[in-house]
Amino acid sequence: MNAPKEFLAAEAAVDSAAVQPLPRSRKVYVTGSREDIRVPFREISQSDTPSSFGAETNAPLLVYDTSGIYTDPSARIDIRSGLPAIRSRWIEERGDTETLGGPTSNYGRERLADPALAAFKFDLKRTPRKAKAGLNVTQMHYARRGIITPEMEYIAIRETQRLEGHGELLHRQHPGESFGARLPKAITPEFVRDEVASGRAIIPANINHPESEPMIIGRNFLVKINANIGNSAVSSSIGEEVEKMTWSIRWGGDTVMDLSTGKHIHETREWIIRNSPVPIGTVPIYQALEKVDGRAEELTWEIFRDTLIEQAEQGVDYFTIHAGVRLPFIPMTAKRLTGIVSRGGSIMAKWCLAHHKESFLYTHFEDICEIMKAYDVSFSLGDGLRPGSIHDANDEAQFAELKTLGELTDIAWKHDCQVMIEGPGHVPMHLIRENMELQLKYCKEAPFYTLGPLTTDIAPGYDHITSAIGAAMIGWYGTAMLCYVTPKEHLGLPDKKDVKDGIIAYKIAAHAADLAKGHPGAQARDNALSKARFEFRWEDQFNLGLDPDTAKDFHDETLPQQGAKLAHFCSMCGPHFCSMKITQDVRDYARNQGVDEQAALVKGMEEKAVEFVTKGSEIYSKA
Amino acid sequence: MNAPKEFLAAEAAVDSAAVQPLPRSRKVYVTGSREDIRVPFREISQSDTPSSFGAETNAPLLVYDTSGIYTDPSARIDIRSGLPAIRSRWIEERGDTETLGGPTSNYGRERLADPALAAFKFDLKRTPRKAKAGLNVTQMHYARRGIITPEMEYIAIRETQRLEGHGELLHRQHPGESFGARLPKAITPEFVRDEVASGRAIIPANINHPESEPMIIGRNFLVKINANIGNSAVSSSIGEEVEKMTWSIRWGGDTVMDLSTGKHIHETREWIIRNSPVPIGTVPIYQALEKVDGRAEELTWEIFRDTLIEQAEQGVDYFTIHAGVRLPFIPMTAKRLTGIVSRGGSIMAKWCLAHHKESFLYTHFEDICEIMKAYDVSFSLGDGLRPGSIHDANDEAQFAELKTLGELTDIAWKHDCQVMIEGPGHVPMHLIRENMELQLKYCKEAPFYTLGPLTTDIAPGYDHITSAIGAAMIGWYGTAMLCYVTPKEHLGLPDKKDVKDGIIAYKIAAHAADLAKGHPGAQARDNALSKARFEFRWEDQFNLGLDPDTAKDFHDETLPQQGAKLAHFCSMCGPHFCSMKITQDVRDYARNQGVDEQAALVKGMEEKAVEFVTKGSEIYSKA
Repeated sequence: MNAPKEFLAAEAAVDSAAVQPLPRSRKVYVTGSREDIRVPFREISQSDTPSSFGAETNAPLLVYDTSGIYTDPSARIDIRSGLPAIRSRWIEERGDTETLGGPTSNYGRERLADPALAAFKFDLKRTPRKAKAGLNVTQMHYARRGIITPEMEYIAIRETQRLEGHGELLHRQHPGESFGARLPKAITPEFVRDEVASGRAIIPANINHPESEPMIIGRNFLVKINANIGNSAVSSSIGEEVEKMTWSIRWGGDTVMDLSTGKHIHETREWIIRNSPVPIGTVPIYQALEKVDGRAEELTWEIFRDTLIEQAEQGVDYFTIHAGVRLPFIPMTAKRLTGIVSRGGSIMAKWCLAHHKESFLYTHFEDICEIMKAYDVSFSLGDGLRPGSIHDANDEAQFAELKTLGELTDIAWKHDCQVMIEGPGHVPMHLIRENMELQLKYCKEAPFYTLGPLTTDIAPGYDHITSAIGAAMIGWYGTAMLCYVTPKEHLGLPDKKDVKDGIIAYKIAAHAADLAKGHPGAQARDNALSKARFEFRWEDQFNLGLDPDTAKDFHDETLPQQGAKLAHFCSMCGPHFCSMKITQDVRDYARNQGVDEQAALVKGMEEKAVEFVTKGSEIYSKA
Repeated sequence: MNAPKEFLAAEAAVDSAAVQPLPRSRKVYVTGSREDIRVPFREISQSDTPSSFGAETNAPLLVYDTSGIYTDPSARIDIRSGLPAIRSRWIEERGDTETLGGPTSNYGRERLADPALAAFKFDLKRTPRKAKAGLNVTQMHYARRGIITPEMEYIAIRETQRLEGHGELLHRQHPGESFGARLPKAITPEFVRDEVASGRAIIPANINHPESEPMIIGRNFLVKINANIGNSAVSSSIGEEVEKMTWSIRWGGDTVMDLSTGKHIHETREWIIRNSPVPIGTVPIYQALEKVDGRAEELTWEIFRDTLIEQAEQGVDYFTIHAGVRLPFIPMTAKRLTGIVSRGGSIMAKWCLAHHKESFLYTHFEDICEIMKAYDVSFSLGDGLRPGSIHDANDEAQFAELKTLGELTDIAWKHDCQVMIEGPGHVPMHLIRENMELQLKYCKEAPFYTLGPLTTDIAPGYDHITSAIGAAMIGWYGTAMLCYVTPKEHLGLPDKKDVKDGIIAYKIAAHAADLAKGHPGAQARDNALSKARFEFRWEDQFNLGLDPDTAKDFHDETLPQQGAKLAHFCSMCGPHFCSMKITQDVRDYARNQGVDEQAALVKGMEEKAVEFVTKGSEIYSKA
């Protein structure tokens, strides 16, 4: 066990590994209808195609960028000050919120007043904001009233693959198979508004997290991924958790859940939120349980309510609420192999058994909605009864809860609260689709947010892979956000390497899903990378990939010399066995003829044969 | 680049990392109808269930074992002598083969006579064997004549999940969805024979590789995986390649392809075959090309034929033959983004262009069949025109070739030659199924053997994951063997770590496919591991997994103390947040009532509630 180093606010510094731009990449911003809508992209520059492949310029590729200003060398980064509050003006302009004198939760007030915490605390110079009495400040509420918020416009820009300056090649794409998803050719602000109004998408954007860069979760948009971080009683410090957050977003985490259960939960969360450009989710019942020293049966609505307010006023963007764990469903888990594996689910099940009644999450659900809409916290309706093994997949308990989540969705929507639905878990491949279909049916197309699912239980240490398989498939079928699983799942808490491994596996799953759905422009990056690969532009191949550092390191293990990166052969095969270049010869020939390629090739094959032998038939250039 | 250490036969020693039994595992043999049919399994012992979970004995689990005698401490291992020739008697008894005076290929004779090679050579004390004139020694030939060979019986035993001594729990399994695969409840020798006779399965078992432990490739059997190894002109030695082989089979490689293209191809292969208990595949055109110094257009049927005989007499079990790369298909690749990416495919395309005629592989296909059936080398009909990028997936060239492979299958079957069909490659998820359907249709259910497919191109360094997704899916749809992809794909040659990473990713894919198909008994290991997990039997959880070492290391990073492995909580959550045990309380209660669990639970919930609070409601035991 690593003894966590004591964290001191005064010494807090950003992780230097998280602030370098990625290789040959720079941050660019696309401005919207107003100056303060500045949507970030990562621009990856490319080398020219070498003359042997037809000498052309390759325009830089813009890709979706979750990394915030950390990868912008022109930005001033000081995690003690937090990120700029880019949404503050938008929130203020709406005129439907007011600034509070300070935290209104009992716990928030206690922590603020506790001198013992001074050394750990983030020094937030502003006080929380809340909807004015009787008003509703959710993005869904605006959307349903026909209002396009700056957040919605921002998202429309962000979700659009920008291919200006690129030739026809990068636009080519296989028609997808989308299982009823409606992927528009152009994502307009109005489309975003309509999706949010209908409940098919959510914009997790607490008014107390004005630092966040707006993003959307819905099956008609790019598939998103979430990274879980958080300390436990046995490991890690505040500083390490902030590092995990900046590390997560560097590699593509779209949201981050802080699942801390150890010391200083409140302070850890504050540091994470103030420095996070992505939405932050939590499971408030974890902290509520800490407040009653781990005795689930002592939990009360009052303690839980205070925790919701505490966290909403810090700026948490979505809450996992396990309100679907109903008393009659608990016996359904008795015949399971692995019982109840959701932490939140087991806490609530324990409470229900102890009191022999429905949980306060269920009975007070409308009260929770009142809190959610006063800060615009989105619901992530938790699947407390998700299966914990292949054996338990798709059982009665799981689907009974899912149906209840659908009923709760209706209630939340009545309040214009934003809702997504959490899903499993452990599911063999052939039972994955049923999960998606029932979710769409019961929950009326509210976004689905699944953990994996793992497609087998026999590979502890590799559950990022067992689950990336299931995640890619369920993403294809329509899941809007995939919660990552790291190699440490079932074994320990993820460190930074595990976080990155989990993120990359899930970026792969999400992108594979976008490709299969036929998301507009999704194939451009594959095409660009494949073109670079074919033309032996090694550095471009690395840089266009999800993890340029690892790609380059792997290449250099076999062929470390700088010259090898200009080599017109792969180290896999060596110079005698390169298979990439023959088509180039074929293609060049056709181009020289100035006629339709295939016709030319059929006609000219004989001539080509002569030329080949004349040239010595070397299909590769020696580096 | 690692400078390969000079390899000397006299100093050759087995990799010590490959000869330890896996933790708490021992080799057991199940004997067939005759004493010399001894089928190996790995027996994983388990701890008893602790009393808090109901104190029961957990019988050891037998799992399929590819590792050969290397993991049998009672075996004498000397890689200079090679493995025992366990099939020799079966081959001799059939009386249809004869021993040759020595290699009959020109190249084989030259190498044997070359004194410069003495220091590198494996000292094989026997000479090659061949079918008597006019006879056919393929397993398919026997099968079609109604003969059940010892190989077939061995396979029937090997393919059967043995659950004697286990309770009902381990037998539980979700009904699968098998897309027309016919998975029998019991795999009998007659079933094996029938599958081989029909061409739906192959047994790669060259009569000159009597050291091999019989295995089968077909979609009505367990999904298999192949590991590629092999040196190139720029890296690695004979000894390293033998190490990669023993390493591959330790982690579950069902076959190994030696794709060497560098120095001493002949000698490297000999060392690998003599020490391999799994079938060895090659791509003979690679070596043929070396023989003409890399000048593809100088390849001739005579050189290729001599290479086939050379390798068949060494004992190669299957040959990749790119006979489907036909002249009219080559122009179809001109509009591709990444042209021809198969090494064999590009060599043949180059030859076809240079000569402007059909390749000698195509025109001499029946001559090749004559060689194959004289040694029982199986065909792996190569997909020389497979797509090299998402962009090129499922195109005209690819499917034109696939159709040709179907025609060649008919020809091979006319000779009772065993055939499998190679498949892609790079395919987005939604286009994978078409590959399987067309393959089944065109190739009449001959086993499909695919490389991945990769489901996106944007993650160099992680293509074991991009492709494990596709591999799991195509395995589910009916692919019989999955060729692994390592993290080094597109970047460099795999080292031992990469080999293991690739193998584990593919074991996951294959097993996920078996589960989804509903392969009889496939879920037993998942159930056993999930039970161990639920009961906090940490060591059992590690040992039942695909990679006990990594699982244990990961666990120990967070909680290294020995006591933590007896802990009744997971390090992810810490002692306050364990979610696993509540069902146990529920279940115990039901058992004490001696009535139907669910009824008891519904009736007794109130009583339970009282008991909970009385007990202090602790749902976990402190370790």
